[in-house]
Amino acid sequence: MTSPLLVFTTDFGLTDPYAGVMKGVALTINPDLRLIDLTHQVSPQNIAQGSFLLGNNYRYFPKDALHVAVVDPGVGTDRRPVLLSTPWGRFVAPDNGLLSGVIAGYLDTTPDVAGPVDLPSELTAVHLNNPEFWRHPVSDTFHGRDVFTPVAAHLTLGVSAEKMGETINSLFYLPMPRPVSHRGKITGQVVYRDVYGNLVTNIPAGSLPAAGSTEVRIKGRSIRGIRRTFNDDTHSGDSGLIALVGSHGYLAVAVSNGSAAALLDAAEGEAVEVAAVSG
Amino acid sequence: MTSPLLVFTTDFGLTDPYAGVMKGVALTINPDLRLIDLTHQVSPQNIAQGSFLLGNNYRYFPKDALHVAVVDPGVGTDRRPVLLSTPWGRFVAPDNGLLSGVIAGYLDTTPDVAGPVDLPSELTAVHLNNPEFWRHPVSDTFHGRDVFTPVAAHLTLGVSAEKMGETINSLFYLPMPRPVSHRGKITGQVVYRDVYGNLVTNIPAGSLPAAGSTEVRIKGRSIRGIRRTFNDDTHSGDSGLIALVGSHGYLAVAVSNGSAAALLDAAEGEAVEVAAVSG
Amino acid sequence: MTSPLLVFTTDFGLTDPYAGVMKGVALTINPDLRLIDLTHQVSPQNIAQGSFLLGNNYRYFPKDALHVAVVDPGVGTDRRPVLLSTPWGRFVAPDNGLLSGVIAGYLDTTPDVAGPVDLPSELTAVHLNNPEFWRHPVSDTFHGRDVFTPVAAHLTLGVSAEKMGETINSLFYLPMPRPVSHRGKITGQVVYRDVYGNLVTNIPAGSLPAAGSTEVRIKGRSIRGIRRTFNDDTHSGDSGLIALVGSHGYLAVAVSNGSAAALLDAAEGEAVEVAAVSG
Repeated sequence: MTSPLLVFTTDFGLTDPYAGVMKGVALTINPDLRLIDLTHQVSPQNIAQGSFLLGNNYRYFPKDALHVAVVDPGVGTDRRPVLLSTPWGRFVAPDNGLLSGVIAGYLDTTPDVAGPVDLPSELTAVHLNNPEFWRHPVSDTFHGRDVFTPVAAHLTLGVSAEKMGETINSLFYLPMPRPVSHRGKITGQVVYRDVYGNLVTNIPAGSLPAAGSTEVRIKGRSIRGIRRTFNDDTHSGDSGLIALVGSHGYLAVAVSNGSAAALLDAAEGEAVEVAAVSG
Repeated sequence: MTSPLLVFTTDFGLTDPYAGVMKGVALTINPDLRLIDLTHQVSPQNIAQGSFLLGNNYRYFPKDALHVAVVDPGVGTDRRPVLLSTPWGRFVAPDNGLLSGVIAGYLDTTPDVAGPVDLPSELTAVHLNNPEFWRHPVSDTFHGRDVFTPVAAHLTLGVSAEKMGETINSLFYLPMPRPVSHRGKITGQVVYRDVYGNLVTNIPAGSLPAAGSTEVRIKGRSIRGIRRTFNDDTHSGDSGLIALVGSHGYLAVAVSNGSAAALLDAAEGEAVEVAAVSG
Repeated sequence: MTSPLLVFTTDFGLTDPYAGVMKGVALTINPDLRLIDLTHQVSPQNIAQGSFLLGNNYRYFPKDALHVAVVDPGVGTDRRPVLLSTPWGRFVAPDNGLLSGVIAGYLDTTPDVAGPVDLPSELTAVHLNNPEFWRHPVSDTFHGRDVFTPVAAHLTLGVSAEKMGETINSLFYLPMPRPVSHRGKITGQVVYRDVYGNLVTNIPAGSLPAAGSTEVRIKGRSIRGIRRTFNDDTHSGDSGLIALVGSHGYLAVAVSNGSAAALLDAAEGEAVEVAAVSG
């Protein structure tokens, strides 16, 4: 039988021993676990970014994966530790919006403002308030070690979710900034900057103008056309600045063999406009 | 049967292939190993920091874990490669003080100056001077690859410690800077700065004033009270600067949703004073 | 039976979720895999550096390891995805020169210019052009996720290489800069800077003057003698600047307990000269 799989997504970084300690705690409870990192380098305390990364990527992992997600600036306060069970993986996390990117895929319409959202029928959740499966003494500052990982490890041992705490019907939802369409023009923003300096926007491929020529505007620059690959920089001007749909399915601004973030001095939050123009 | 567990703690970083190469060498000798990182990002050549991180965290790993710890500026010189066996894990490392944080927990009193310390009865050690279990040719600059990892991998195959070299009764001890108490005032220092910019001191929770109000002083700033969580910044002033006991059990200085290191421009070595003040 | 081993070498970094996503895809296809990283921190889009690191280090991994190597600025263009099978490991990678460091070890003479090189008889290769074993839909920008990792995972399930595509007889070769010998003087260059600030050159230990005193020149500084360890800095002057043969077998310039890169303000490409001088 294959060993259970834990997948970690945190803002703990890889310099401090926090990520390693969580793995030690997990293996102390269940020595048979397989442990994989999605990333430990969510920007510190950036719940929205963690939600974006987790929501875009959990479907690349097996359906029986158990995700441990910890971006938790409210650790030690009354924000709830929760377990979310979905048709594609289970998630142990603080109830602070970090699971919004996962939940969004199951909602017909997503809320515009932050707050509790009722869970649709495919999803179930438990408030992890039974300290029996925590690590003791519980610190007030590191629930990744003392609450989330121990609960997850016990779940992989076959302890049922019901024993972990009370069933709940809603979770806290943190809306992503959404692009706005007006008179054929879409206005969105950069939501992620990757290691290559590619600027990922919140404008999904499906909302781009279907035909004709497209113009993308960012920081006073105009980019014509949507390219297929990073290498397609014909007629992109001296800068090599191009627009394309990234592997995550969103419009991205890039520079062939270079960094768009550096060229444009742009980062998360930068406005991006898309318009159909006559060829 | 569960596979043996190696846990790595080094200053090799994750950019260079050194950490990956150690894992390749380990799996070449014992393909059945599980491999986990505590951290590869101890500050380069900083033995004291490695000792602090290892000593504070090895108890979060299973008792049968075999730790491979390599912060080894003296590689290729006559500092000894050693194996330390304890009731809570075994440790393969250079005998340069890197195991001091582990040893300290078993000593009634710890030495004030660097030098050999006699091992208490719970601990046994071996000088790993039998080249039969090294990788050959042995380089003079990378014993993590050629000595420590091969010895550890062979230990997990069931080779006895006695075959690895000669039993020794003392190891090199590197004292941590210790806080000083004088007239009710404790003077310590920052010994670690984490990814969030939290400043971890060497002042243990147990030595803080038991009751009344506490004042923490650092870089000319005064912080009143010891908080329970990072979020508790009521009455902390505009800066949000707070003091609390971190998950490692030491006093730490932090900023709620921010970086104390950046705010104070402070790093390892910075003096920290604690005094009881009348509420 | 031991689980199959995948070893990753990429320029994806560890901040973005790309490396984690490849592991999720691999485990979705074959849950039984062991997954190890050589490094994900090749400099972005630096094929030559990836080739150098892979070529210098693959022999530290088991002979039955399957390497997934992705430094792929041409992703989505017509550069071929390939499988290279060698007596010491198999390699799935883009055919852009990334495997040159591996191939070089099997060639009697290596090409001076970039271009196709015929494979010697020990090596076989397949153009991975059978989309049956890819992940669909295939993005144009992330073949690590959609082509290389899925093909590798299927290979570990026992699918034969022949089913993955057509056998090919040559691969693209990217020459490393080679040192030049002239009148007893060797002129090479820095090809890698590691985390300690050690400057690794392309001058192999075997080509250093066999006897007498050696002088290494870099950035107007002269370094006498080849040391054995980082600690041997006797007579090295105030700076502690030394030359030695690193664990990879190449001449390196270092500073005892310090950074040669910082001291000399030197990086990849910097010229290094070696000459035998009368003692």
